[in-house]
Amino acid sequence: MGRVVDCAIYEGGQRLRSLDINDADQMRVQPGRVIWIGLYEPSQEELAKLQAYFGLHELAVEDAYRAHQRPKLELYGETMFVVMKTAQMDGTHVAMGETSFFIGRGYVITVRHGPSVSYADVRSRCENSPENFKKGEDFILYALMDFIVDRYFPIVESIEDDIERLEEAVLDGRSTLDVLEEIVILRRDLLHMRHAVAPLPEICQRLMRYDMALIDRNTHPYFRDVFDHSTILLDRIENLRELIKTVVDTKMLMSAMKQNEVMRQLAAWAAMLAVPTAVAGIYGMNFDNMPELKWEYGYFGVIAFIVVICGLLFWRFKRSGWL
Amino acid sequence: MGRVVDCAIYEGGQRLRSLDINDADQMRVQPGRVIWIGLYEPSQEELAKLQAYFGLHELAVEDAYRAHQRPKLELYGETMFVVMKTAQMDGTHVAMGETSFFIGRGYVITVRHGPSVSYADVRSRCENSPENFKKGEDFILYALMDFIVDRYFPIVESIEDDIERLEEAVLDGRSTLDVLEEIVILRRDLLHMRHAVAPLPEICQRLMRYDMALIDRNTHPYFRDVFDHSTILLDRIENLRELIKTVVDTKMLMSAMKQNEVMRQLAAWAAMLAVPTAVAGIYGMNFDNMPELKWEYGYFGVIAFIVVICGLLFWRFKRSGWL
Amino acid sequence: MGRVVDCAIYEGGQRLRSLDINDADQMRVQPGRVIWIGLYEPSQEELAKLQAYFGLHELAVEDAYRAHQRPKLELYGETMFVVMKTAQMDGTHVAMGETSFFIGRGYVITVRHGPSVSYADVRSRCENSPENFKKGEDFILYALMDFIVDRYFPIVESIEDDIERLEEAVLDGRSTLDVLEEIVILRRDLLHMRHAVAPLPEICQRLMRYDMALIDRNTHPYFRDVFDHSTILLDRIENLRELIKTVVDTKMLMSAMKQNEVMRQLAAWAAMLAVPTAVAGIYGMNFDNMPELKWEYGYFGVIAFIVVICGLLFWRFKRSGWL
Amino acid sequence: MGRVVDCAIYEGGQRLRSLDINDADQMRVQPGRVIWIGLYEPSQEELAKLQAYFGLHELAVEDAYRAHQRPKLELYGETMFVVMKTAQMDGTHVAMGETSFFIGRGYVITVRHGPSVSYADVRSRCENSPENFKKGEDFILYALMDFIVDRYFPIVESIEDDIERLEEAVLDGRSTLDVLEEIVILRRDLLHMRHAVAPLPEICQRLMRYDMALIDRNTHPYFRDVFDHSTILLDRIENLRELIKTVVDTKMLMSAMKQNEVMRQLAAWAAMLAVPTAVAGIYGMNFDNMPELKWEYGYFGVIAFIVVICGLLFWRFKRSGWL
Amino acid sequence: MGRVVDCAIYEGGQRLRSLDINDADQMRVQPGRVIWIGLYEPSQEELAKLQAYFGLHELAVEDAYRAHQRPKLELYGETMFVVMKTAQMDGTHVAMGETSFFIGRGYVITVRHGPSVSYADVRSRCENSPENFKKGEDFILYALMDFIVDRYFPIVESIEDDIERLEEAVLDGRSTLDVLEEIVILRRDLLHMRHAVAPLPEICQRLMRYDMALIDRNTHPYFRDVFDHSTILLDRIENLRELIKTVVDTKMLMSAMKQNEVMRQLAAWAAMLAVPTAVAGIYGMNFDNMPELKWEYGYFGVIAFIVVICGLLFWRFKRSGWL
Repeated sequence: MGRVVDCAIYEGGQRLRSLDINDADQMRVQPGRVIWIGLYEPSQEELAKLQAYFGLHELAVEDAYRAHQRPKLELYGETMFVVMKTAQMDGTHVAMGETSFFIGRGYVITVRHGPSVSYADVRSRCENSPENFKKGEDFILYALMDFIVDRYFPIVESIEDDIERLEEAVLDGRSTLDVLEEIVILRRDLLHMRHAVAPLPEICQRLMRYDMALIDRNTHPYFRDVFDHSTILLDRIENLRELIKTVVDTKMLMSAMKQNEVMRQLAAWAAMLAVPTAVAGIYGMNFDNMPELKWEYGYFGVIAFIVVICGLLFWRFKRSGWL
Repeated sequence: MGRVVDCAIYEGGQRLRSLDINDADQMRVQPGRVIWIGLYEPSQEELAKLQAYFGLHELAVEDAYRAHQRPKLELYGETMFVVMKTAQMDGTHVAMGETSFFIGRGYVITVRHGPSVSYADVRSRCENSPENFKKGEDFILYALMDFIVDRYFPIVESIEDDIERLEEAVLDGRSTLDVLEEIVILRRDLLHMRHAVAPLPEICQRLMRYDMALIDRNTHPYFRDVFDHSTILLDRIENLRELIKTVVDTKMLMSAMKQNEVMRQLAAWAAMLAVPTAVAGIYGMNFDNMPELKWEYGYFGVIAFIVVICGLLFWRFKRSGWL
Repeated sequence: MGRVVDCAIYEGGQRLRSLDINDADQMRVQPGRVIWIGLYEPSQEELAKLQAYFGLHELAVEDAYRAHQRPKLELYGETMFVVMKTAQMDGTHVAMGETSFFIGRGYVITVRHGPSVSYADVRSRCENSPENFKKGEDFILYALMDFIVDRYFPIVESIEDDIERLEEAVLDGRSTLDVLEEIVILRRDLLHMRHAVAPLPEICQRLMRYDMALIDRNTHPYFRDVFDHSTILLDRIENLRELIKTVVDTKMLMSAMKQNEVMRQLAAWAAMLAVPTAVAGIYGMNFDNMPELKWEYGYFGVIAFIVVICGLLFWRFKRSGWL
Repeated sequence: MGRVVDCAIYEGGQRLRSLDINDADQMRVQPGRVIWIGLYEPSQEELAKLQAYFGLHELAVEDAYRAHQRPKLELYGETMFVVMKTAQMDGTHVAMGETSFFIGRGYVITVRHGPSVSYADVRSRCENSPENFKKGEDFILYALMDFIVDRYFPIVESIEDDIERLEEAVLDGRSTLDVLEEIVILRRDLLHMRHAVAPLPEICQRLMRYDMALIDRNTHPYFRDVFDHSTILLDRIENLRELIKTVVDTKMLMSAMKQNEVMRQLAAWAAMLAVPTAVAGIYGMNFDNMPELKWEYGYFGVIAFIVVICGLLFWRFKRSGWL
Repeated sequence: MGRVVDCAIYEGGQRLRSLDINDADQMRVQPGRVIWIGLYEPSQEELAKLQAYFGLHELAVEDAYRAHQRPKLELYGETMFVVMKTAQMDGTHVAMGETSFFIGRGYVITVRHGPSVSYADVRSRCENSPENFKKGEDFILYALMDFIVDRYFPIVESIEDDIERLEEAVLDGRSTLDVLEEIVILRRDLLHMRHAVAPLPEICQRLMRYDMALIDRNTHPYFRDVFDHSTILLDRIENLRELIKTVVDTKMLMSAMKQNEVMRQLAAWAAMLAVPTAVAGIYGMNFDNMPELKWEYGYFGVIAFIVVICGLLFWRFKRSGWL
């Protein structure tokens, strides 16, 4: 199922031509030019070829093949190996993918896994700002990271909306059992998002700190921008995790208060129905000598008595807020 | 909707004259003078002009245009870019705005977004203490930060009052379902306030540490003052977050205890009504041979029996605190 | 309401004479002598005078006037400015005051705010150990800090006693609704105590680290002693915060278990009363053909049946612990 | 019960021959060769021999004999002493074992305790990649650590499956009391796994940092690989700990909501049954003068009345979601 | 109540003779010899003498006299002052004592407070391994610390057993109200144990780091051993704290689930008893015209009807797990 999505060579911000990944000649690194290869779930053979062309490290290639890494930045000699998680909405929940980048002098390789969109947009953005593109491989790395991080924002916003909606549902008492399921899913999504975002600030800082030939000093503000965005995301995610705890607490309190309320209503109505039952029970006894039974208006008196008692109870319960 | 709120040039603590932001000539930085520009949600064009006049960094300008940053301090060469959150009460909840500052040699630019008051008060405060104002751009930065931080205090105090009120309501058992809504809103407000305040101590420390030409050593105590105030605020906010958790815990415990109480009352009254029902049921049976029914005072005896039993039950429940 | 509590000059550990704070001549710092001024909620004018005499920093004076600081240590040139919280029991809750110290070469100024005892005891302790007092202003600082910290201990112990009492009350099931109020008050008191104590270890360490002329190396063990005491206090306060959480958890569990118990009793008694009601109801029906009603001992048989069933139920409920 | 599982000498990646642990001559370290000894719960005598042959430190030998250590890396001169926990599924719960390694110039000793599989697989893996094996003792250490860490993954995955299954069971409301037992067991297993994994990242980092003769620079990427794997594991374990808390919270909320639901149903049915009881009770009274009793269709009217009332109640309860 | 438990002088690992603490001559430090004094709750006078003999610092002596310190290591010149908590089982709860050590060139003083065993065992252990004892005062310090830490293990194990027992009791539903009391006591014990153990790792590390004449490089592995043991203890204590929280959570969930169960049973039985009551009530009415009453087998039909309805209800409740 391996697929070479796009493979091209660029010079001075211009796309020169597409390349064939199988042609070792075309895969030669040339000074001033960048080979940019985009792969989607490549086979081991394809990766082995690239490993041979560009001298990638065996362990990094294995990571790129197997995926299931956490976001990280690793240096193998001059080559940078970066892993990031990609996120996109899949119906109502968040689907996570993974992308690995190999960035070296003269080449950039992206390896996508799982649900993720192609980086064609990044390519055109780079081609449309040739003055930036010229800066080299580091700008491509920035453009890719920025693209991935930017796509986190609508997801976090959608989760924010969901939580706000849940909060209102809970406060309105409209919430039913599937609120619970939503809470569980949102918590899971937030955990995934946090794992995707949490390592990024440190990765950005390392990119700015390391004085490698590959990262130019002039691109530092760009990585600081990614750093800022991922810090904001992380803040918002932590916020949401706290808000969802508030929702759970509120739901719990709500349940407890509702239950008290129901209990009181139950008690009040039980009392109001038990009175006629008890009174009627007494006058249903079969004693020979029960003077009231002979009274002309005994029956009506008892009915009136019951009505008055129940009325009094109703009024008292109403006043003390039980009904 | 962009608006230039005020734009003037100052020398030695004195306001010289207002300037026109569109006149590139007037916008020239002059030694010993400070241009102070106040903007409210400016258009991209207005910011682009200022970017050209003062050589602001593209990414900082974008941050100032888009807002939705977290409080931060960034250095682009000699220019400082500071973002702060502003807070004000909007009816019963807290509305957050955002202000960005550009501070450079000879100019100060403030860009306000969302709900926020104008900085006219800061200008007049500065003009009224010319000896301090003379110190330069760093004093203006201090005056702005101090102004924003000072306006956090009444908000935190209002939240403190709300929580104290809630606490009393909960302890008095007067609390109803809308206590929950208040708790949710207060928690949200505290989260926002914390996000506004939390980064400030570190920003102040960096302002005191960095030996930039812009921050004079003599203004360090002033920034330490802002540092102190934001630390106090943070402490109080953390306090309030803990207190609100106490309120939730207390409400939960209260609910559980109330429920036990209601349950016991319910049980007690049910028992007291079930006794006449059961006894009367028995003497309501239609057996031919039920000697008690023939007794002269059987009926009165049964009534007396019921009254005695219910009285005994009432007395026992009362004694053991169920009623 | 400002008040000069005591103002005197000391030499070699001996009190020479009282001074008049309004006499600028007497307020002159003299080598080998220490002026010790004690103020209680002074007016701005009084503080302004001292500011002039001793060259105190404007911001420190404002802090000392306004109070509402958190405990801190600040250096303005050679002058140390220390803020501490004082605590004392006010009936059943803890009342917090605040004291600021200015310590400089040749003078010590204490400014008390809110509920607090005078430092006359510290003065006499210092006068009674002249060999220590001779060491200078740093020993006075130690004596003051030690005095304040020592007064925290009985308060923490009283809270410990209260929590232990609460714990027992909860475990005995004797607890009523006002246990909740006590828990809320104790939590608040612990928060206040923690805020008073938490910054002290770091302040002590800074006093030992800073090599200022004012703190002599030989007084370091004394500040380490204050450091130890405040660390112990902090530990105990954290302990108490955890214990009070245990109390809340226990109360919650207790409530849940009690409720189960009450529910079961309620269910058991309801069952035992429902049986005669149901049986009697059946024999209260008015069918023409109900053979049992004609039986000589039908009535007694039914009564016996009811007694047996209720007895069996009672025995079963007893055995399974529901009653 | 001590057992020498395997003892052999290797040269250049080739197994030369098996050795006898009792023959001191064979146990001599030879340059370019590695003696690899595998023990299972050895006796004190066996360890004492090895201690004498290789000059192991008394305290390390005692640790290896007694087990019950936490994972750690210690250096005694040139000898590395590493302790790791091994994990394997034992029916439905996780059984933890312990392995200690002594790695020195020319020898590797593994001491297994408790449930654990033999390292025969590691030996054959090493023998099958002689080019790596040649690198020396450090590669054996890597192979052993990698083997142990790799075996954690299926266990964590099995726990993940269990938690997902629990989560679904809870959300479906299918959960019974033994869900609780499963939660307790899974929490315990996660605690054990965390204790096994948590110290590994730091151990790996120390292996890469320490410049000991034993760890070659070229094997650093291998240990970074183990570092990565253990970090991923730790992340997943923390994740699972959080998920299981979510399950508990959800179960709690579920219980509270279910209880409200049951309460309401109970209340609704109680009301619907209490109405005929009360009405019938009234017409069961024995008053002489009860006109309705004489009516031709009184009885049918009452029945109809009861049916209508109950129908109305049923409809209202249905509409408001109580039934 | 002060008591000199044992006082002797040692040379080269041999006990030479017992000494009299009141004889200043015997209390002279001699090169190559160690005076080892064991005290139990000494009087202020006894400590004052030792202070004079060995030049102990006033504040350390006061700490040793008053006790109630947290575990710590302090240096006064060349003298080390170490405080540790001792623990032993007192029936079902843990009793904490305190021991202070003064270790200086040529002398070791131990001061025990509260429940604690004598250090006679440590003396004989030291005398029995003279080759280690010869190393000097540092080995005595190690032996004492090791002795105290070793005695923590059975206590932690006993708490582990108690928690496991509690866990089973809770899962079996056998738990009654005194489970709560046990949980409270165990939590308290764990807090005490944590406070005793938590500072030890850092103390051991400082003992290994500090290059004081008193701690020989060769005894470092011994202190690392104590470090390891206290780290293991701390891990286990944290584990237990988490497990006890699990127990509380489980008990809470259990209570909630049990309550639901009881509620459902209550509801089911109430329904099954309310049916005959309601039906019988109807046929107990005294209407003149109730055709069923005349039917030959009306009574039996009603009984059959009741039995069938109750049987259906029983079967439905059984099937849906309510009974």
